[in-house]
Amino acid sequence: MSRKISLLGSTGSVGTMTLEVVAAHPEEFRVACLAAGRNTDLLIEQIEQFNPELVSVADEAGRALVRDRFGDRVNVMVGQEGLIAAATHPDVEIVVTAVVGAVGLLPTIKALEAGKHIALANKETLVAAGHLVMDLARSKGCHILPVDSEHSAIYQCLHRERSVDVDRLLITASGGSFRDKTREEMAVATVAGALNHPNWAMGAKITIDSATLMNKGLEVIEAHWLFDMPYERIDVLVHPESIIHSLVEFVDGSVMAQLGSPDMRIPIQYALGYPHRLPGQYKRLRLLEVGKLHFVEPDFDRFPLLRICFEAGRAGGSMPTVLNAANEVANEMFRAGKIGFLDIEKTVERVMDRHKLTSYPSLDQVLEADAWARETAREVIRALEMR
Amino acid sequence: MSRKISLLGSTGSVGTMTLEVVAAHPEEFRVACLAAGRNTDLLIEQIEQFNPELVSVADEAGRALVRDRFGDRVNVMVGQEGLIAAATHPDVEIVVTAVVGAVGLLPTIKALEAGKHIALANKETLVAAGHLVMDLARSKGCHILPVDSEHSAIYQCLHRERSVDVDRLLITASGGSFRDKTREEMAVATVAGALNHPNWAMGAKITIDSATLMNKGLEVIEAHWLFDMPYERIDVLVHPESIIHSLVEFVDGSVMAQLGSPDMRIPIQYALGYPHRLPGQYKRLRLLEVGKLHFVEPDFDRFPLLRICFEAGRAGGSMPTVLNAANEVANEMFRAGKIGFLDIEKTVERVMDRHKLTSYPSLDQVLEADAWARETAREVIRALEMR
Repeated sequence: MSRKISLLGSTGSVGTMTLEVVAAHPEEFRVACLAAGRNTDLLIEQIEQFNPELVSVADEAGRALVRDRFGDRVNVMVGQEGLIAAATHPDVEIVVTAVVGAVGLLPTIKALEAGKHIALANKETLVAAGHLVMDLARSKGCHILPVDSEHSAIYQCLHRERSVDVDRLLITASGGSFRDKTREEMAVATVAGALNHPNWAMGAKITIDSATLMNKGLEVIEAHWLFDMPYERIDVLVHPESIIHSLVEFVDGSVMAQLGSPDMRIPIQYALGYPHRLPGQYKRLRLLEVGKLHFVEPDFDRFPLLRICFEAGRAGGSMPTVLNAANEVANEMFRAGKIGFLDIEKTVERVMDRHKLTSYPSLDQVLEADAWARETAREVIRALEMR
Repeated sequence: MSRKISLLGSTGSVGTMTLEVVAAHPEEFRVACLAAGRNTDLLIEQIEQFNPELVSVADEAGRALVRDRFGDRVNVMVGQEGLIAAATHPDVEIVVTAVVGAVGLLPTIKALEAGKHIALANKETLVAAGHLVMDLARSKGCHILPVDSEHSAIYQCLHRERSVDVDRLLITASGGSFRDKTREEMAVATVAGALNHPNWAMGAKITIDSATLMNKGLEVIEAHWLFDMPYERIDVLVHPESIIHSLVEFVDGSVMAQLGSPDMRIPIQYALGYPHRLPGQYKRLRLLEVGKLHFVEPDFDRFPLLRICFEAGRAGGSMPTVLNAANEVANEMFRAGKIGFLDIEKTVERVMDRHKLTSYPSLDQVLEADAWARETAREVIRALEMR
């Protein structure tokens, strides 16, 4: 087999690791499309190496750069139109959605409509519109293979088990870079401090989301949709070593877990190769070297965003869309040094308070709620800045 | 469905727990045959409760007691003939082999010849004649569902995965009651001390085998046969909490594990219900209460029987039969107070040293090697006693 892959978000952390997996398995995978943002230098290197049929870039400036380098040898498109063309390219079997944020939603929906399997590294898509995406995947018979290590773990634990036999999901959390910080310390936290994740090398947005535990909350909502599991049967377990990536408890009291070194290439490769496993030259887990695994309860008081995510999930409808959009804006503003670390939760909470929920939003209503939440978040932040 | 079960060894530890599982699922399981040894009082209670069609007891005295109580209402047979009749009863779908020691071998072979699935709690059967038993199961299309918690864990981890995707098996060991003892302390160990297992409530023979790590070595050989895995791809990992029951490492670096409270009813129920899981009212695992899981290397110097088991397994042929038979005799003699704790390993080693290996023994040759090893073990022990 040689599976043709479209990679949306090729220059990000998951994107580059996806290409490492592809490069390690030239017999199994071939890159048909690459979509990137503004990192044109890296994209050009990737085009050299993987020789895709279609490339998408953020803007005309990027297109010009790619054209300068490759002339007519590569088909280059731009923006949302380019992302969607890459997501629906006729040769493609699997679309890897490794873009960051709700921008992944539309291309994912278009890919599913075109009958593509999805390797999902963009949890915001399911948070914003899980009901639409999962319905569409079911009706088209497409797999949604999670790339998040936690969801990949659960997927592997559920491997061909009956869903009626599942009792609950246990999602593990490293605790992020502020796991042991007090609220007082968080109040004066720097961007650099928040970006210093203890276990995982990831992009900036997700690393900040890990520090607030927002990332874990988004994962809870993602798991709710991916595995059709009510929120009262999803638990979060702080596990500082990030060795057990998540667990599933079955009705008989048996608990299955997936473990591994904290290396995103393992779940990426699993998603691309599913249902087969391919040899991986990644650092093997050595439990004797690890020695100990710890488990502690998450602290919902120090990390209110985790609680807020459960609340948004239970509220349902357009609330998770709003939660996610407000967080995207606040996360970005924190990284830009405009607001403090604890202002992230404040912003999200205030935007959610003002939201009038739509109970089963259409795609247009999702996009509208998303836009409203971003605008409202900016307003809230302006008010915070004027303190 | 209502699966008819034959239970060989009904009054032992696994036997009584098997009946608890059956009693908890009257819709799913029915006991057709009970075979016990000399605990006739308990057997009579079990006959009252489960109303089997056929009963087997150790001797004529036992038969008379059962007859006194039930008259002609129950068919009672005796000894090896009775065990085999119970193992091959035409109504039976699954035979639970919960007898202790190599006495389980012949009934297991007869059950497989009659096309029964086996819930295997008698690891000595595979140690003594794994090549014959596994060949027979394959040719008859019978499942061998392990009841040992470690092998049940591996079976669950391998659930419908491809065998080519498996890299290695990691069998966990509590370390037994003498985990932290020095050789000097073991030399003067009492039977009561060795029977004091930290985690599992089990029968006397297996608890002593746990203290010597012989049990873990037998499990390595059992795993070799059950999962067709070469010895160099089976590791033992000391895990004092007995929460992770075993793990499987795949070629992609992903590691699957099965966890649970140390309660044999969970693997027993899994074996009886396979491929479905049934609700279990057993104590649930609470990782937050456990808090920490530890892993340390097994100490082959303090526990030479573990090393000897690997050597016997690698030697193959009749050597594991001899290993097992010599251990059964030595284990019994230790429990009877005739020899010291460290004489168990001495006995096993000396008997193996004297053995002339047969490379692919027939059933007769297996039984012959077994008998020879028992006799030789007794000789060795007499010599030890004369010190």
